[in-house]
Amino acid sequence: MKNNEQQQVQWRQKLHETIFEADTPVGKYFDIVLMILILLSVITVMLDSVNSLHQFRIYFIFIEWVITIVFTIEYILRLIAVVRPLAYARSFFGIIDLLAVLPTYISLFLPGTHYFLVIRSLRVLRIFRVLKLVKYLKEAQLLLRAMHASRRKIIVFLFAVFSLVLILGSLMYVIEGEENGFTSIPRSVYWAIVTLTTVGYGDMAPVSALGQAFASLIMVLGYSIIAVPTGIVTVELSRASETRVSTQACPVCSAEGHDFDAVYCKYCGARL
Amino acid sequence: MKNNEQQQVQWRQKLHETIFEADTPVGKYFDIVLMILILLSVITVMLDSVNSLHQFRIYFIFIEWVITIVFTIEYILRLIAVVRPLAYARSFFGIIDLLAVLPTYISLFLPGTHYFLVIRSLRVLRIFRVLKLVKYLKEAQLLLRAMHASRRKIIVFLFAVFSLVLILGSLMYVIEGEENGFTSIPRSVYWAIVTLTTVGYGDMAPVSALGQAFASLIMVLGYSIIAVPTGIVTVELSRASETRVSTQACPVCSAEGHDFDAVYCKYCGARL
Amino acid sequence: MKNNEQQQVQWRQKLHETIFEADTPVGKYFDIVLMILILLSVITVMLDSVNSLHQFRIYFIFIEWVITIVFTIEYILRLIAVVRPLAYARSFFGIIDLLAVLPTYISLFLPGTHYFLVIRSLRVLRIFRVLKLVKYLKEAQLLLRAMHASRRKIIVFLFAVFSLVLILGSLMYVIEGEENGFTSIPRSVYWAIVTLTTVGYGDMAPVSALGQAFASLIMVLGYSIIAVPTGIVTVELSRASETRVSTQACPVCSAEGHDFDAVYCKYCGARL
Amino acid sequence: MKNNEQQQVQWRQKLHETIFEADTPVGKYFDIVLMILILLSVITVMLDSVNSLHQFRIYFIFIEWVITIVFTIEYILRLIAVVRPLAYARSFFGIIDLLAVLPTYISLFLPGTHYFLVIRSLRVLRIFRVLKLVKYLKEAQLLLRAMHASRRKIIVFLFAVFSLVLILGSLMYVIEGEENGFTSIPRSVYWAIVTLTTVGYGDMAPVSALGQAFASLIMVLGYSIIAVPTGIVTVELSRASETRVSTQACPVCSAEGHDFDAVYCKYCGARL
Repeated sequence: MKNNEQQQVQWRQKLHETIFEADTPVGKYFDIVLMILILLSVITVMLDSVNSLHQFRIYFIFIEWVITIVFTIEYILRLIAVVRPLAYARSFFGIIDLLAVLPTYISLFLPGTHYFLVIRSLRVLRIFRVLKLVKYLKEAQLLLRAMHASRRKIIVFLFAVFSLVLILGSLMYVIEGEENGFTSIPRSVYWAIVTLTTVGYGDMAPVSALGQAFASLIMVLGYSIIAVPTGIVTVELSRASETRVSTQACPVCSAEGHDFDAVYCKYCGARL
Repeated sequence: MKNNEQQQVQWRQKLHETIFEADTPVGKYFDIVLMILILLSVITVMLDSVNSLHQFRIYFIFIEWVITIVFTIEYILRLIAVVRPLAYARSFFGIIDLLAVLPTYISLFLPGTHYFLVIRSLRVLRIFRVLKLVKYLKEAQLLLRAMHASRRKIIVFLFAVFSLVLILGSLMYVIEGEENGFTSIPRSVYWAIVTLTTVGYGDMAPVSALGQAFASLIMVLGYSIIAVPTGIVTVELSRASETRVSTQACPVCSAEGHDFDAVYCKYCGARL
Repeated sequence: MKNNEQQQVQWRQKLHETIFEADTPVGKYFDIVLMILILLSVITVMLDSVNSLHQFRIYFIFIEWVITIVFTIEYILRLIAVVRPLAYARSFFGIIDLLAVLPTYISLFLPGTHYFLVIRSLRVLRIFRVLKLVKYLKEAQLLLRAMHASRRKIIVFLFAVFSLVLILGSLMYVIEGEENGFTSIPRSVYWAIVTLTTVGYGDMAPVSALGQAFASLIMVLGYSIIAVPTGIVTVELSRASETRVSTQACPVCSAEGHDFDAVYCKYCGARL
Repeated sequence: MKNNEQQQVQWRQKLHETIFEADTPVGKYFDIVLMILILLSVITVMLDSVNSLHQFRIYFIFIEWVITIVFTIEYILRLIAVVRPLAYARSFFGIIDLLAVLPTYISLFLPGTHYFLVIRSLRVLRIFRVLKLVKYLKEAQLLLRAMHASRRKIIVFLFAVFSLVLILGSLMYVIEGEENGFTSIPRSVYWAIVTLTTVGYGDMAPVSALGQAFASLIMVLGYSIIAVPTGIVTVELSRASETRVSTQACPVCSAEGHDFDAVYCKYCGARL
């Protein structure tokens, strides 16, 4: 009985290793196959929406169903492999995994709605599952840590940008007026964002001399303040990636600033 | 009598805490309500300008008056709560608070002018009042300190950009000429700014081969010199957030600005 | 006789101080007047080219002549004030000063040519003369030093960008072809520059699916490689502005890393 | 016999010095001539594609053949000069050198195809051959090292951008729909890339209010996340150019990577 239980645990552990990790050769092959399937599924979603390829729809639906069934099996296996299935099901990737298969099944009952396309396009997020190779994960965590550390500064910056475009947009609405396409404050704010972020579609552009002078000001402003988020992230990224130096102090000379891999003090030669 | 006075001071202190700070639960609720009102007021200003929503104007005017009255009460309370009301009234936020309510009252006597929309849109700046939560304030101060430290470099940079677009604009006016839309030097300078800041509306674009070659040069220039403000802000932000300088003052000469590892005052040699 | 000579030297020194420096009150007023004249002259050049202001041309010509005569007197005074007039006349600012007055005189003999507008617009560079205030000069030198230090990396980067746009432009010429506006390789290279630098006029845009896919690649590339010049300048700027630490070592404890203004060693308290 | 062999080795060494290096005066002249030829050849390729210059085609073909023959001779000389010709022929520059001459010869048998223009435009890469001057090479290597060190972070970032534009593009396809030009998901993704990278052609632009609000979000996002690659490259460039690590190897354990101020080996404790 106990042996059986142990076997089951081992079997689950092996399944877990294969599906969730990439250390074993089988786990690696699993990841590569999964990656190809995800990309294939995303390409199918994209091509499915092209009108001129409507004649191939039957193939797209076929691929869609094959991938959905494979993803469903994978989802069930993941539920079995983990010790606490509910925790997995509620996790970010658990929901993404579910959303990857659900729309296809629902489309059997509610046909024709292309809102499912958006949900199906979320499958692309599953790629980050496969990026679990240690080195990439570490880099991604570094980026996330830098982002997290700079979130308050970014929020303050975004509030400032939001205030700026609202005031500039209102001003431009008064300067240019409805006859030049600035028909309302929301539209003028939209134009201010397009200009400040240096996107510059050109669907709305100032016509009057005053409007162009004012727009020039916004552009130079936008050109300059892009330095702020860049500076924030650079500083945080620099700090996040500097954690290479150990906090260990030499027991003999008390010197600090040793590398993590240091065995002897580099100043007095004592063993750390 | 004295007791009464004391009570009054206490009452004012409590009002000050509620309105100006966010440490007490009441102060926190006050801030949240204020934030919702500010956002509601800003959204009303924006929607008020949309022509297709003209049928709802009566509701916008109603919301506008409710918010104005609340803001007026708040403004009076603020005047009462502070020890020196005139100093508050003249401060940046004091003026913003006044401008938030004034246009609605003036519109009773001077109806129909949409110039007030711009002044009313300044209300968005009141949001920074609510951002007084300690952590956000510190981050904002850090950003401002970095901006302040780099203001001279930024001014030199903006002068250089201004000279550049004037010379490049004049050159382009001669190269492309009036037949290609470069009708005057101010317009050509406007185009040079649109190009250098990589906004690129496309309302004016070089047509001749020489003009396009010259425009390519401006683009690569603009693409490269954006590095300058970014570099400036990054360096200053990095310095501002390093806080390497101790707040310790010398007990003998009172000099400040000592390094954290300093044992003796670097100005008078006294032990810190 | 010798006294006379001495007086002359003193007189010249005083003139030099007034014109070339901003330390004395007279020198300061001279600079402010000069700055106003430069800005006025630049604005006149700009407005002179606007067709709708043609009726005011007589005023522009009048202002132009007044400024030219003042600048001519200033130029002659500068020649007198310096010890070696030829060296000044050949220097960068000497040539700019000459070019600021020459076009107006030549226009007496060669009327009507608007090529002089470009030369007259160079007057804006004279503004940097006035920016000789010590603090701004130091910041400008810092920026120039950082630019100078990173010039080789920038050249390598620009060579890489040049190669990239040539190859990408040629490819796009073959992909999109003449029917979609990519009529020649130079035009396609121009488009590649417009896209890579994220300017994006929209006067030329890919139409075919392959062209749009390929253009997306260029955009993401351009979006990413802008990081390179920014990184280069940031690093050099950071290095250039770090020269605050003195190279002086303490004579007692040999510790280094003292600030420039330090009088006593911060580690042992000995006089530096 | 041996003397002859020695002479041959010397002769080959001299040829190698002239062609591959820039230390000797002859090698320098060789490089300058080569650079002019490369630029001339690239300009010919570009002008060759301009329709309005079709009348000069005979000159372009002449220049093309002269350059091709010179490049062919150079290619053969390079094959002779190196000790292992096959290794050279297979190297990156070996293939570029071959591709620089091949299309002209093939065009004798397969005339009229302008696909060769792309291959001929690859000649521009030969310029990096000439940039072998030590100082430029070091700078280029620094840039490449920084790029190489940040490749994993860049890949993670590009994956994130790719996921983002796919999801945002799908959403926009549903929001704006076919009537506003967002005819398919691939086209919407193309628009999302144009917007996120702040290129903003304007060939497709949101029309509905919801679409414009959503587009504003993408723009601010794109404006902010450009900070990420910039931060990555800046940090790596800063690290790469700091060269804090000494090239000294431990005399006992041969370990490398010691700091400049290290006195003892940090791995075995031996005096350096």
